Amino acid sequence: MRKALAIDVGGTKIYNTIVNEKGEIIGDIEKHHTPKTFYEIKLLFQGIIKKYEDEVDIIAISTCGAVNNSNDGILGSTGNIAKGYPDMDFKSLSRKPVFVENDANAAAWAEHIIGASKGMPDSVMITLGTGVGGGIIINNRLFKGKNGAAGEMHFKMRMDKHRKCTCGSWDCFEIYASGTGLKLTAEEISKNPEITTYNVIDGWKNNDVLMTQIFNKWQDDILAGLIGLANLFDPDAIVLSGSMAEFVDTDYLTKSVNEEIVTTPTMVVKAQAGNYSGMIGAALLAFGIGVYGEADG
Amino acid sequence: MRKALAIDVGGTKIYNTIVNEKGEIIGDIEKHHTPKTFYEIKLLFQGIIKKYEDEVDIIAISTCGAVNNSNDGILGSTGNIAKGYPDMDFKSLSRKPVFVENDANAAAWAEHIIGASKGMPDSVMITLGTGVGGGIIINNRLFKGKNGAAGEMHFKMRMDKHRKCTCGSWDCFEIYASGTGLKLTAEEISKNPEITTYNVIDGWKNNDVLMTQIFNKWQDDILAGLIGLANLFDPDAIVLSGSMAEFVDTDYLTKSVNEEIVTTPTMVVKAQAGNYSGMIGAALLAFGIGVYGEADG
Repeated sequence: MRKALAIDVGGTKIYNTIVNEKGEIIGDIEKHHTPKTFYEIKLLFQGIIKKYEDEVDIIAISTCGAVNNSNDGILGSTGNIAKGYPDMDFKSLSRKPVFVENDANAAAWAEHIIGASKGMPDSVMITLGTGVGGGIIINNRLFKGKNGAAGEMHFKMRMDKHRKCTCGSWDCFEIYASGTGLKLTAEEISKNPEITTYNVIDGWKNNDVLMTQIFNKWQDDILAGLIGLANLFDPDAIVLSGSMAEFVDTDYLTKSVNEEIVTTPTMVVKAQAGNYSGMIGAALLAFGIGVYGEADG
Repeated sequence: MRKALAIDVGGTKIYNTIVNEKGEIIGDIEKHHTPKTFYEIKLLFQGIIKKYEDEVDIIAISTCGAVNNSNDGILGSTGNIAKGYPDMDFKSLSRKPVFVENDANAAAWAEHIIGASKGMPDSVMITLGTGVGGGIIINNRLFKGKNGAAGEMHFKMRMDKHRKCTCGSWDCFEIYASGTGLKLTAEEISKNPEITTYNVIDGWKNNDVLMTQIFNKWQDDILAGLIGLANLFDPDAIVLSGSMAEFVDTDYLTKSVNEEIVTTPTMVVKAQAGNYSGMIGAALLAFGIGVYGEADG
């Protein structure tokens, strides 16, 4: 069975491990702080790859940033990582094949092949973390759009320029549905600029009235976005992943989405492919598992 | 060359004509008022079909309402048409094959094969009329979702329950971007409940300051929606069709969308397949033109 060296590249951490064709993690999870410069990131990649290159068939990289349709480079800029990073020549990093995919797209693929949306041709996956990521599966294929950047969860929730989004535009789903969004909602409702997402989650767990009000507003903002996605994509399921997803009530979201949409009933479910779904999905995509139907049936 | 009897079914009018495999209209355009009851609609269909059945190869119906993935029935309810209409057994209407598709999906296909998005693998088409319709082309295929209902332009523009949408939910794109939306925006800004979309368009054409302000607000609401669609779909183009599309400034929309999106540059263009693009697209889909690649190259 083939093996991939899988690397997950985020703005603060870089992970690596070994993944097999079943999507199983068969190596240690190694964790690194994301270096501050392009050169140091490249050195870290070279070190990881040198260590494992001989024992794997392919290098599978799950990264922040939109990835092109030839899966070898990043499109545009990527926010919280060294400025030159998007210019990385990934293919030059190894004599083995190198495959790159956006982290949310990779995670969506992991859910599709071994996780919460397994067996479903059409699904939308959303990662709710510090930010929001999106990956869309259409007719059992990862949906990339004309250049590979599709699935960005930057659609507007308001038209009055209320919150500036990390993308530079205003009032995107991301700046309401993310952990950052929860903090901003908490600040607005509590009038306390020091309040943290931890305060909200802890208070909500202990039935604090104000914290529950804040939590519910955040969850209903997520709901508003899911209704639009269900109407646009008529998906089998919407999968919620990421550190903030564990708190949401998927029964409530499923019921509420289905009450409002004009398309056919869907379900909102939590991700099942685990914390390293980006690395798993990147490896499965790199192997071509499911991409050409190998995983069907 | 094969010929289709094409029928377009809307809430107020039903049209029929003959369309060939090139997407050319080769018959007269016949226009009927949409009858008020299921039985009368069925009688009208039977009359049209009886008249042309012998000279065509297939019956292609472009209809209001979401159409299932077997293209023979309507999903759910359809708004402004006789209540029983969605239960129509289309296949029983003729001894020739009967093919049914949603009107906006059919129009999107016409644009993809012979119109504004010809040669583009990925596009989003929006009809701006009394309501708003949507049709999405992904990787040269009509995107239908799990049951056929995908592409509904009901995503939220606000979260404060400001305008009730025709779908029963609140603040969907449709209730801002449609002609109905323009009238509501005009009422809000002018404080005049008698104002019509005609007043706005006429005043805007004559550089009236208030009417121009109203028009620009309406166009910027459309822009807000297009930004979200461009970020979700990374399309080659967004095609605007329908009676209200002739007024919008696609250069302004293209420039503004591209300034705000995190995906790659797209373009906003006007439809080119004409007023009967629904019938043309339904016929082309019924023939399978483009569906299996026949129209490629």
